[in-house]
Amino acid sequence: MKDARRPLRSAIGWSTADRIGVWGYDLTRELIGRVNLGDMGFLEIAGRLPNARESRMFNALLVTLVEHGIVPSTLATRMTVAGAPEALQAAVAAGLLGLGSVFVGSTEAAARMLKDALPDPSADVSLRTTARRVVAEHRAARRFVPGLGHPIHKPVDPRTPRLFAIARANGFSGRYVELMKLIAMHAGQAFERPLPVNATGAIGAIACEMGLPWQACRGIGVMARAVGLVGHALEELREPLASEVWHRTEDEASAPIRGKLRRNARTAGRADPARRR
Amino acid sequence: MKDARRPLRSAIGWSTADRIGVWGYDLTRELIGRVNLGDMGFLEIAGRLPNARESRMFNALLVTLVEHGIVPSTLATRMTVAGAPEALQAAVAAGLLGLGSVFVGSTEAAARMLKDALPDPSADVSLRTTARRVVAEHRAARRFVPGLGHPIHKPVDPRTPRLFAIARANGFSGRYVELMKLIAMHAGQAFERPLPVNATGAIGAIACEMGLPWQACRGIGVMARAVGLVGHALEELREPLASEVWHRTEDEASAPIRGKLRRNARTAGRADPARRR
Amino acid sequence: MKDARRPLRSAIGWSTADRIGVWGYDLTRELIGRVNLGDMGFLEIAGRLPNARESRMFNALLVTLVEHGIVPSTLATRMTVAGAPEALQAAVAAGLLGLGSVFVGSTEAAARMLKDALPDPSADVSLRTTARRVVAEHRAARRFVPGLGHPIHKPVDPRTPRLFAIARANGFSGRYVELMKLIAMHAGQAFERPLPVNATGAIGAIACEMGLPWQACRGIGVMARAVGLVGHALEELREPLASEVWHRTEDEASAPIRGKLRRNARTAGRADPARRR
Amino acid sequence: MKDARRPLRSAIGWSTADRIGVWGYDLTRELIGRVNLGDMGFLEIAGRLPNARESRMFNALLVTLVEHGIVPSTLATRMTVAGAPEALQAAVAAGLLGLGSVFVGSTEAAARMLKDALPDPSADVSLRTTARRVVAEHRAARRFVPGLGHPIHKPVDPRTPRLFAIARANGFSGRYVELMKLIAMHAGQAFERPLPVNATGAIGAIACEMGLPWQACRGIGVMARAVGLVGHALEELREPLASEVWHRTEDEASAPIRGKLRRNARTAGRADPARRR
Repeated sequence: MKDARRPLRSAIGWSTADRIGVWGYDLTRELIGRVNLGDMGFLEIAGRLPNARESRMFNALLVTLVEHGIVPSTLATRMTVAGAPEALQAAVAAGLLGLGSVFVGSTEAAARMLKDALPDPSADVSLRTTARRVVAEHRAARRFVPGLGHPIHKPVDPRTPRLFAIARANGFSGRYVELMKLIAMHAGQAFERPLPVNATGAIGAIACEMGLPWQACRGIGVMARAVGLVGHALEELREPLASEVWHRTEDEASAPIRGKLRRNARTAGRADPARRR
Repeated sequence: MKDARRPLRSAIGWSTADRIGVWGYDLTRELIGRVNLGDMGFLEIAGRLPNARESRMFNALLVTLVEHGIVPSTLATRMTVAGAPEALQAAVAAGLLGLGSVFVGSTEAAARMLKDALPDPSADVSLRTTARRVVAEHRAARRFVPGLGHPIHKPVDPRTPRLFAIARANGFSGRYVELMKLIAMHAGQAFERPLPVNATGAIGAIACEMGLPWQACRGIGVMARAVGLVGHALEELREPLASEVWHRTEDEASAPIRGKLRRNARTAGRADPARRR
Repeated sequence: MKDARRPLRSAIGWSTADRIGVWGYDLTRELIGRVNLGDMGFLEIAGRLPNARESRMFNALLVTLVEHGIVPSTLATRMTVAGAPEALQAAVAAGLLGLGSVFVGSTEAAARMLKDALPDPSADVSLRTTARRVVAEHRAARRFVPGLGHPIHKPVDPRTPRLFAIARANGFSGRYVELMKLIAMHAGQAFERPLPVNATGAIGAIACEMGLPWQACRGIGVMARAVGLVGHALEELREPLASEVWHRTEDEASAPIRGKLRRNARTAGRADPARRR
Repeated sequence: MKDARRPLRSAIGWSTADRIGVWGYDLTRELIGRVNLGDMGFLEIAGRLPNARESRMFNALLVTLVEHGIVPSTLATRMTVAGAPEALQAAVAAGLLGLGSVFVGSTEAAARMLKDALPDPSADVSLRTTARRVVAEHRAARRFVPGLGHPIHKPVDPRTPRLFAIARANGFSGRYVELMKLIAMHAGQAFERPLPVNATGAIGAIACEMGLPWQACRGIGVMARAVGLVGHALEELREPLASEVWHRTEDEASAPIRGKLRRNARTAGRADPARRR
């Protein structure tokens, strides 16, 4: 039986009485006080510390996704605080759970689309032709092209030019960024409306430039948003809004059915049931 | 009815077509490319960006808690990846859920103990007397003093001297750090064994020095560990260990009951049920 | 090293090629098609199947807690569906996370209070005196007595008389139920307002009558509410409300800060930033 | 602005001072004490109470999925208990999070495959031809056919004949069950190994027979497993195994890297770092 066992391996961390190792670095001597939290994020994804340009770029990607005010994930966090104020970690976890295909997943989808279309960035292929093909394929499959357009930020997502400028300044503005822009241009023509690159498209493209796997892109969003959700959980403890949102929603959502109930009660000669609040 | 409504308020974020505001800062112009992820964490807790010393100190606190190799929370993340590899956010959330009273909660407990014992750090009280009183109270209530001792890191938690050195270098080594050290000394005497300040005790004390509320301490651990859990989720996708741990545990945990079942089957003249693996 | 290992044990389940065991029962022959989901819940908590009276009673406790319409936990589930419609399990998990000290935890607190006050239900003590002491202790500690009163259901929580009637009919209306009622009476007098036993108080008392440990009470709520949250997740997929709640909340919560931003922009001679929606 | 608002609607629940409504039923008079937890699950999915046959069938589906001993999801729950014993709801949530595409998701995939292949069960089509086409399509796309085969339960999953017998006895053994069996037969031929219908395939087919939408199938697994996970969380509190699994895994997984560290230390003339445990 024992021989059938597969060995367990992890390259990430280990401890001895006087040392803690993280991805081959000595935590105490080489990481604490020397690197920032974003660098640790790069280390967890790439297995090595970033150089100065990578550090600036990767922290910029993370900072972009930390916070966007009241959104579904921050509301899930706040609703959880209302019921379990003693478990802040559960409130943050509740908020992370919605980072799926609709909101933060588009970063992953954009990176995957680019890597699939251009597996080798140094390959001698026309980006223009590639972009046209990608858009045509999405159109034929009636799928929406990830990383483009935004319901609020129009005509331009203000985060995109900023991220692309930082990418240029740090040597991460190569063929994936170019391909993403060309896809946006062709998609705009094909779908006949402006479809500029949004923040998740920019982040997906820059992650490809940095050599990160597309699977890591959702992780970038998760790291960043966990930081922001802590802020919302703490604000909810100080200045709650969950309870008021709950009561207003419940009042309106069940009003028709409650009204019917009241009418039935009246018909039946019973007193009108008192309404809450 | 409408008058009864309480207004909804959040100071954290807002968006217009061309701007995104975060805690009073313009995300694009003032944050992306200018600050690191740890600074964003400080901003979410304190409502303002840190100065250079605060940035160094707060990033050091976060970096300390990102990673500790295979621990219960990273195993929960890896077990979740095994079942839902398509939902990285859920795997990270599963790992965060165990950051309760046993593991990361001790940071919160240490900070709360210090703030309760010394609400005003400039008060004219003897820290020695305060420390003795705190230890005596915990002893009388048969409660364990938070932030002291470590099962692996003996006689000293290597993270503690490093954190205290950074605190000294950046002006965060005041009366809360001193009180924490005095509590460790008195606890060691009272419980008759070495009880040095561990990493969570150091972080709790330094958070008090920085003026952060004790409620924020669990948030520091949650921000940091979310970053580390992304690394474990991605390693599990590349090099899985969850499945092997599951099978070994299942084999051993149900062996006695399975043996009994087999014996019953034999007695009953039925074939010995084949064992898995 | 090996000798230092503690054995791993679980009495819950096991599998062979042709059988699955659950708490000592053969799943296929003794459980599927023979018992209902509530009986399985009793089995998981008590380690044996319920008899007919226990089955009726325990299912009644569970049915009571499945559903209460739009509440914070169902809103957390719905917010998660909005972001990750592909991960229904994550949406239900998000809703469960808020079942903490405020909402479902009071069942646990009521059961614990009763067990602490009356560890042996057959002990020769006056329930009246015990009830008076319990209320006095809570009053002295300025703590709220769990299981009493309700913001909506006044003057009586309609679930309570129903649950107590079922308890009577099935032999679970003993001294814990009596003690809970006496505590309500004394609390009403002490706090000078009607404080009838609410559903969580009734469930806590009946769980004590059934010999269940107080730790199991939160589990009853979690089992029940998981069933209800599936209903909300599926309704949200068919008829979404999360997105509308989000936009209304965001609009109102960030209006003051957005207004300020607009005034600053005007003063600076810049165009009035267009508002969303 | 107000006119742009979409109304909020939910048909599930509502409350007045003396009544609680759930899916059109009066909770106190029509549900508590009259139906079991499985019936409530049917109500949440179908919007009406089941008849007697539906109740038997649906409870059988649920009971099948409650418990399978030590598996990844129960280990995630137990790891969470180790860190946050005070938050049972979080431990159960952690276990639910892994019910994704690999484990419980296959029920959903099987149901979806059947509904896609046979949208109208009364249509005049050959099930044999349909089954052959479904298998051929999966083969061509190199996709695995959901609901077939099992690593442990060979040659037959013992739950399947039991579920199919209950389906027959209650009038739920129609064309979807037949199609599922034919798909298994053709898949066995095409892939040249026995691929009998497993429990998730049986549940998916029976759910189609009952007229439930395929989206509900993951919900059935989530309801059922939440009940089982409460059992594991409570057993972990009484008889912990998470900590031992953690230490063994950590020891083995980081042994190579720790060995290297020790050798480096020796070479450098430093003392051999003491090993933990």
